[in-house]
Amino acid sequence: MRVDVITIFPDYFGPLELSLIGKARGAGLLDLTVHDLRKWTSDVHRTVDDTPYGGGPGMVMRPEPWGQALDAVGAGTLVVPSPVGKPFTQADAHELASLDHLIFACGRYEGIDQRVIDDAAARLPVREISLGDYVLFGGEVAVIVIMEAVTRLLPGVLGNADSLTEESHAAGLLEAPVYTKPASWRERDVPDILRSGDHGRIARWRRAQSLLRTAARRPDMLAAYPDEFLDKTDRKTLAEGGFQITPPAVAE
Amino acid sequence: MRVDVITIFPDYFGPLELSLIGKARGAGLLDLTVHDLRKWTSDVHRTVDDTPYGGGPGMVMRPEPWGQALDAVGAGTLVVPSPVGKPFTQADAHELASLDHLIFACGRYEGIDQRVIDDAAARLPVREISLGDYVLFGGEVAVIVIMEAVTRLLPGVLGNADSLTEESHAAGLLEAPVYTKPASWRERDVPDILRSGDHGRIARWRRAQSLLRTAARRPDMLAAYPDEFLDKTDRKTLAEGGFQITPPAVAE
Repeated sequence: MRVDVITIFPDYFGPLELSLIGKARGAGLLDLTVHDLRKWTSDVHRTVDDTPYGGGPGMVMRPEPWGQALDAVGAGTLVVPSPVGKPFTQADAHELASLDHLIFACGRYEGIDQRVIDDAAARLPVREISLGDYVLFGGEVAVIVIMEAVTRLLPGVLGNADSLTEESHAAGLLEAPVYTKPASWRERDVPDILRSGDHGRIARWRRAQSLLRTAARRPDMLAAYPDEFLDKTDRKTLAEGGFQITPPAVAE
Repeated sequence: MRVDVITIFPDYFGPLELSLIGKARGAGLLDLTVHDLRKWTSDVHRTVDDTPYGGGPGMVMRPEPWGQALDAVGAGTLVVPSPVGKPFTQADAHELASLDHLIFACGRYEGIDQRVIDDAAARLPVREISLGDYVLFGGEVAVIVIMEAVTRLLPGVLGNADSLTEESHAAGLLEAPVYTKPASWRERDVPDILRSGDHGRIARWRRAQSLLRTAARRPDMLAAYPDEFLDKTDRKTLAEGGFQITPPAVAE
């Protein structure tokens, strides 16, 4: 996968060398180039922003450097992290991971001149993506997040393929608590069941923990969980945990 | 504000030196220390993880180094980025920005032994926070995101105080498109109204753009927007844009 990142803070992307993203680059799975937007300015101050038309606080990024930068990196899917974008999900990560060429445009918060997006959208697929409903300094850290989520889905990046499989099974519910050695620590013991060696019981315990945790912490997620995925035992677990769930509609 | 970050990838936090977080540190508004978790290991391999009890893929972080690390950094609010956490919002950023001491624990994805959280929760306020419903390599980049969102709310960090005020006015709706010079670029013009100098009309245009964008891109956000904040003009804008909104309940 080819990835171009356009930013006024190229140094911000040092972390991409670390962790698994660096390994993906090293293994030739990821061809990443970080570009300094100021390369495409022509004035002595290398200006990339100006005051907003119509007034108001802050600065807006001027269209010319962006237009030239996007022309230079060529065709690909343009990803613009933005508070006005679609909330990023794991499904988006999978979709982006299937593409050949991603171009990330890092705006500062007040934003990039709208015409840059409009002009690009006339030629390229454009995805405006929001990490979540919170405000950041700029798009840089959002790009690192999206890159992490995407890179780990590239074939060959995660050493243990099982990890991805496991996640997809668990999709839609929070995971159960995890434990490792030692069995006893600060007078807290690993639950006996996890040390029983009985894989059937362990799987049922994890499923129950997963359901109860999701019900307690993310009722929104449980509500979105397909009703047909909840069997009789699941419903009993939730009822005994004190959670009301709507019984499935009975077919007539 | 004092901030301690505990991680096995201390180099990952280089970006915190850049951008406004670096300025906040320089101005003494932020006392940030990044700790290498392996400092609290005692074996020659500096091991921090082991296989999960009960089986399954991946590794789980062992409790001992975490327990010692948390003892060493002292009392504060423990923030653990985790897929099972509460979804992070701007309200959480404001809450964290009001605290004196934050401790961030960066886990790798399969997670930290649950007893570390339980043990800390018996002594400290613990906040498990999820950036969103997508999967990352580990907590590091999530901490950078949360730190950015929190740091920019610290008094004295943003040069232009107006920027924060403006955002809070707009809270709950997506912002209108922004434009800057030049007035014409690649045959695309800045909307005339933004160049009219008529601040009343500009404000109404922005409000309408904001409503229409939110309705089109984030119906969930518009649905959560307090009904009493929508006046007659707003309702007309949405209706003319083809969006159905539920009329407010009439008091009897």
